[in-house]
Amino acid sequence: MLQMAPETMRELAHHVADLLIERNVRLRGERAWEGDFKDALADRLDEDPPEAGRPAREVIDRAARDVLNNTLRLDHPRSFGFVPACPTWPGVLADFIASGFNVNAATWLVASGPSQLESVVIGWFRQWFGLPDGAGGLMTSGGSAAALHGLVAAREAAGNPDRAVAYMSDQSHGAQVRAARIVGITPDRIRVLPTDTSGRVDPGAVAEAVAADRAAGRTPMVVCANAGTPTRGAVDPLPALADICAAERMWLHVDAAYGGFAILTPRGAAALEGIDRADSINVDPHKWLFQPYEAGCILVRDAGALERAFAIQHDVLQDSVWGAAHANLADQGIQLSRSFRALKVWMSIQTFGMAAFRAAIENGLDLAARAAEYAGGSRTLELLSASLGMVCFRVNPGGLSEDALARLNRKVLAHVFWGEQAFLSSTMVNRRFVLRLCILNHNTTWDDVRETLEAVERFATEVTE
Amino acid sequence: MLQMAPETMRELAHHVADLLIERNVRLRGERAWEGDFKDALADRLDEDPPEAGRPAREVIDRAARDVLNNTLRLDHPRSFGFVPACPTWPGVLADFIASGFNVNAATWLVASGPSQLESVVIGWFRQWFGLPDGAGGLMTSGGSAAALHGLVAAREAAGNPDRAVAYMSDQSHGAQVRAARIVGITPDRIRVLPTDTSGRVDPGAVAEAVAADRAAGRTPMVVCANAGTPTRGAVDPLPALADICAAERMWLHVDAAYGGFAILTPRGAAALEGIDRADSINVDPHKWLFQPYEAGCILVRDAGALERAFAIQHDVLQDSVWGAAHANLADQGIQLSRSFRALKVWMSIQTFGMAAFRAAIENGLDLAARAAEYAGGSRTLELLSASLGMVCFRVNPGGLSEDALARLNRKVLAHVFWGEQAFLSSTMVNRRFVLRLCILNHNTTWDDVRETLEAVERFATEVTE
Repeated sequence: MLQMAPETMRELAHHVADLLIERNVRLRGERAWEGDFKDALADRLDEDPPEAGRPAREVIDRAARDVLNNTLRLDHPRSFGFVPACPTWPGVLADFIASGFNVNAATWLVASGPSQLESVVIGWFRQWFGLPDGAGGLMTSGGSAAALHGLVAAREAAGNPDRAVAYMSDQSHGAQVRAARIVGITPDRIRVLPTDTSGRVDPGAVAEAVAADRAAGRTPMVVCANAGTPTRGAVDPLPALADICAAERMWLHVDAAYGGFAILTPRGAAALEGIDRADSINVDPHKWLFQPYEAGCILVRDAGALERAFAIQHDVLQDSVWGAAHANLADQGIQLSRSFRALKVWMSIQTFGMAAFRAAIENGLDLAARAAEYAGGSRTLELLSASLGMVCFRVNPGGLSEDALARLNRKVLAHVFWGEQAFLSSTMVNRRFVLRLCILNHNTTWDDVRETLEAVERFATEVTE
Repeated sequence: MLQMAPETMRELAHHVADLLIERNVRLRGERAWEGDFKDALADRLDEDPPEAGRPAREVIDRAARDVLNNTLRLDHPRSFGFVPACPTWPGVLADFIASGFNVNAATWLVASGPSQLESVVIGWFRQWFGLPDGAGGLMTSGGSAAALHGLVAAREAAGNPDRAVAYMSDQSHGAQVRAARIVGITPDRIRVLPTDTSGRVDPGAVAEAVAADRAAGRTPMVVCANAGTPTRGAVDPLPALADICAAERMWLHVDAAYGGFAILTPRGAAALEGIDRADSINVDPHKWLFQPYEAGCILVRDAGALERAFAIQHDVLQDSVWGAAHANLADQGIQLSRSFRALKVWMSIQTFGMAAFRAAIENGLDLAARAAEYAGGSRTLELLSASLGMVCFRVNPGGLSEDALARLNRKVLAHVFWGEQAFLSSTMVNRRFVLRLCILNHNTTWDDVRETLEAVERFATEVTE
């Protein structure tokens, strides 16, 4: 009923491969962003499911044309907005092969090979971040789910205190706040602490807030530190925060979704000093490890912490008990059915080797440093921050009020959006509206960055306030 | 650095397609289960990441041989254990294409086409389950995450009560208990209520427990009902539970991960009567809608409930605000980065049409009914339950104690596991150890089921207590 002849399967797979390879080849010559309004897309896509089937090739072509075309190409070499992502082809093929083998990496019995390979990949990560033997982890859908795993483990390790308090900075990602809310920490017990002009939290402010909460009978439970803030790539003072957590018996969770894999380079390792003292770390291989969505990961200092928080027993799963050495990964996290996310990391690294990955990360760090230098030396641009591949700057011709500058920069951003091949986004740095480049793509060249900056300078003179 | 020549990309994609198609063709002739012990797999797979790359084709072949081969083939026509799954080829290709386009279905700006298509698919589901206009939902990693979304929405809708209580049955899936734990409902406030001999919760027991909790100053918040229990496919009395929830202003969440899509058939719709009164429903297209892992979904009666529970604001996302009609799906759930799960559902249904899907679900229901009839008429087998594609039975030659019967059936199960092409699992029904068939695969024939039952009968006579 839902089966296809092998020849049809092959023909369709080749057609999809051709579509993807053509897209890849054409990418550099196209605009980074395409999209449409809801009315237009609803006209094309809203319909009841058909009673009879339609030719598979037409369905594929329609999806490519009317659906997948209407996206930001996050892997475009001039895609600098938000956090871009540029997956390797072996990573994409790994998703294809994992889907085709229909892997459910839930239990050892159901997936012994995938379970062992996930353990291999987690072991690599553990070593890269300097976590000790006995640390462990789990692949997740992304940084948000990984942070949630960290906070559940923290709460269980603390014995489920009634009035648990979480500490983070005003630069922490909204996903960290959301994770705290999901585990039941109400907003009045989420301390959002101020940061200095470099975007880092003040450890003294953390210590004071902890003392105040203890005095009020609440239970300081977890510090969520940043290792690469989403706004500007700032890294909180991890050693000082680790000291506080050690003294106060609190859990240190580090959000390294963005910046974590920079640790593979000397510059990144220096910036992330102290991350090896974390109790849990969330990282995203779909960012600086060049994998397709979704690939997240939670690492924990004590491998047992996840299992103690998440293990479930059920009559219908009794056959899954396979002996102590044979972990059921579904007992370590939120998901029972689990796709095989470790495969893409493994296939990519096996195919290209670590030297190529380090060079690809260095490329992003280098280009960001050059972009910062360019903005700093420009007559029309003002550099506001530069760290770990992220550069925040604005058009500032001089003599304008803060309000006028914000309006001017919004106009410039709109010009880039509608008129250029490139895509960049905005944020707030020290209460100023700024343009933001995040440079991650291994295909991005200095020409890509320079021409984008030149376009911004050009718009700065064309757009009058 | 991490780029490949188009010709290499094409050659590798064709190689992966060939591997998957060959696997598909050979599947019926192979054993349903392969696996290995940790020591053996660690010998083959444990190693540091290589500094230099290796030939991509060798990496792919090694993954297929040493990793992916060591799994339960959940799509084997004689895979009857746990909840099997048999994805369509357009569903697999959709995962490939979504990875290759590197879709992040987080916001309208980043993915307008995928956002609209997800809304189309959710609209189909909403109608199938009889939810009103104004209902909505979100694709998730699976039923566990979907249930978690439902419970967070329930908790936020109830105003985050301090002593919230959740009600479920002793047949509810462990993932439902886990979801309640994650949102902060401690075990002493999770009421696990007894079921009758048909595996259904007693609404009177729910009402009594609610009254007792109210009297004790706790806040009854949510009833988690089952629409297809994992053990035996039983459906809780949904209309009576909906009445209680309406009277007590509680949230009714229905776990239809397993049984939900049976609603597309007359038998399934009859069994699931009352599901249209749920406040939230979790369903898994990777089960009875024949999609590859992962494809889950949460449906909510009030579309705004998810956004009120999950929306995040962040400076770095300010460009994503695109106008009221243009939903940012990341504001409706746990994930920010989100892969494009709706595409596989859409491509499969467009390609095969609804009639084929209904027939494929009917096939599972038919075969399970015939299996139940066979077991009921067998001299050596005893039928213990049959509902919604699940059949629980045991070997019972007569004259044995309950303990002896349990030992005998464990031996028979081991014989099937080691000696047959087929795979089945076990569970407990009314405190009895039983063998369990879950029949979902659109390729499964009566011969597959009959020969498996005959093997069990044969082992029953060969194995002496």
